[in-house]
Amino acid sequence: METKLIIVKAVLRTAESSSFVTHQVPSITVDIAGIPGDRHYGILRPATSRQKMYPRGTMVANRRQITVVSEEECVLIAESMGLPEIRPEWLGANLMLSGLRKVITSLSLGSRLLFPEGAGLICEGENLPCLGPGKQIADFYNQPELAAAFVKAAANSRGIICSIEREGTIQLGDICTIIPYKRGII
Amino acid sequence: METKLIIVKAVLRTAESSSFVTHQVPSITVDIAGIPGDRHYGILRPATSRQKMYPRGTMVANRRQITVVSEEECVLIAESMGLPEIRPEWLGANLMLSGLRKVITSLSLGSRLLFPEGAGLICEGENLPCLGPGKQIADFYNQPELAAAFVKAAANSRGIICSIEREGTIQLGDICTIIPYKRGII
Repeated sequence: METKLIIVKAVLRTAESSSFVTHQVPSITVDIAGIPGDRHYGILRPATSRQKMYPRGTMVANRRQITVVSEEECVLIAESMGLPEIRPEWLGANLMLSGLRKVITSLSLGSRLLFPEGAGLICEGENLPCLGPGKQIADFYNQPELAAAFVKAAANSRGIICSIEREGTIQLGDICTIIPYKRGII
Repeated sequence: METKLIIVKAVLRTAESSSFVTHQVPSITVDIAGIPGDRHYGILRPATSRQKMYPRGTMVANRRQITVVSEEECVLIAESMGLPEIRPEWLGANLMLSGLRKVITSLSLGSRLLFPEGAGLICEGENLPCLGPGKQIADFYNQPELAAAFVKAAANSRGIICSIEREGTIQLGDICTIIPYKRGII
């Protein structure tokens, strides 16, 4: 049986902390708080409307450090929206992978993503689509209705959020090893 | 319908870093790395044989900060072993809860445990029983065979591991609110 390799097809980071939009770089070096200088860097961050169990703005553990999408799902979303492409930059992705057997969005919490130079990420769960990336897509194609269309089209295929488990560098072209969560690996 | 409250029946911490055995205290104040001064305190910790994806001793994110057991499961394990009691101290527990509808061991990854003064924990998954606590039980009852018997008896009922999401104090007698994981609360 041929085993398909999972490849890092794009490595990205935010250019400034005022926007979630990312741009491609050759590599990122992550520490335990994320990508130094990136918008989502930090051991703590303020709670948002996603964590309704805490008052908004309360400082909580930052598990939203790294956004991972798959090339196959970007194609799926584009096809569903009738567009030529969806770029990982518009989704605020930090990594775009290709070659997964299943969509990465269905990866279970606690699964690991490992990279050749040592970096290790933990899957914190599915990233639910919202209007922010939709607006980027709408602006690029100059079609305002695409913002809401994205939220619908990207349901179950907008990728995952990860936090750092082990520090290291992740390079464009790296082979990624995914270890699904199983009991007892805490 | 009567709703049963979930109560903190014991609060515990390690006395020294050389042993996982805990002792009861009136309260603990947790920061983002755990219980300051406790054996399991730290943002990072060395990988053990549980994380076979990393070389042993590699520094990785410390998600093993807080051990939570339930009073009902301690009783279950004791009954299964034919013993009068299993104390949370012997399990290295930091919190013993009572009043959950289901066993706490089956709580899903990413669920939250919230406390009245603001502290919030995230469930990192099930704590698999090992020989360490079994030896404590064997020593106390002076029956060496109890060590291995514990590992068998405590399968699926040895509680969970949590990490800190929000800093704060947890007191004996606090009411704990459990929020099961659902998509999008990252």
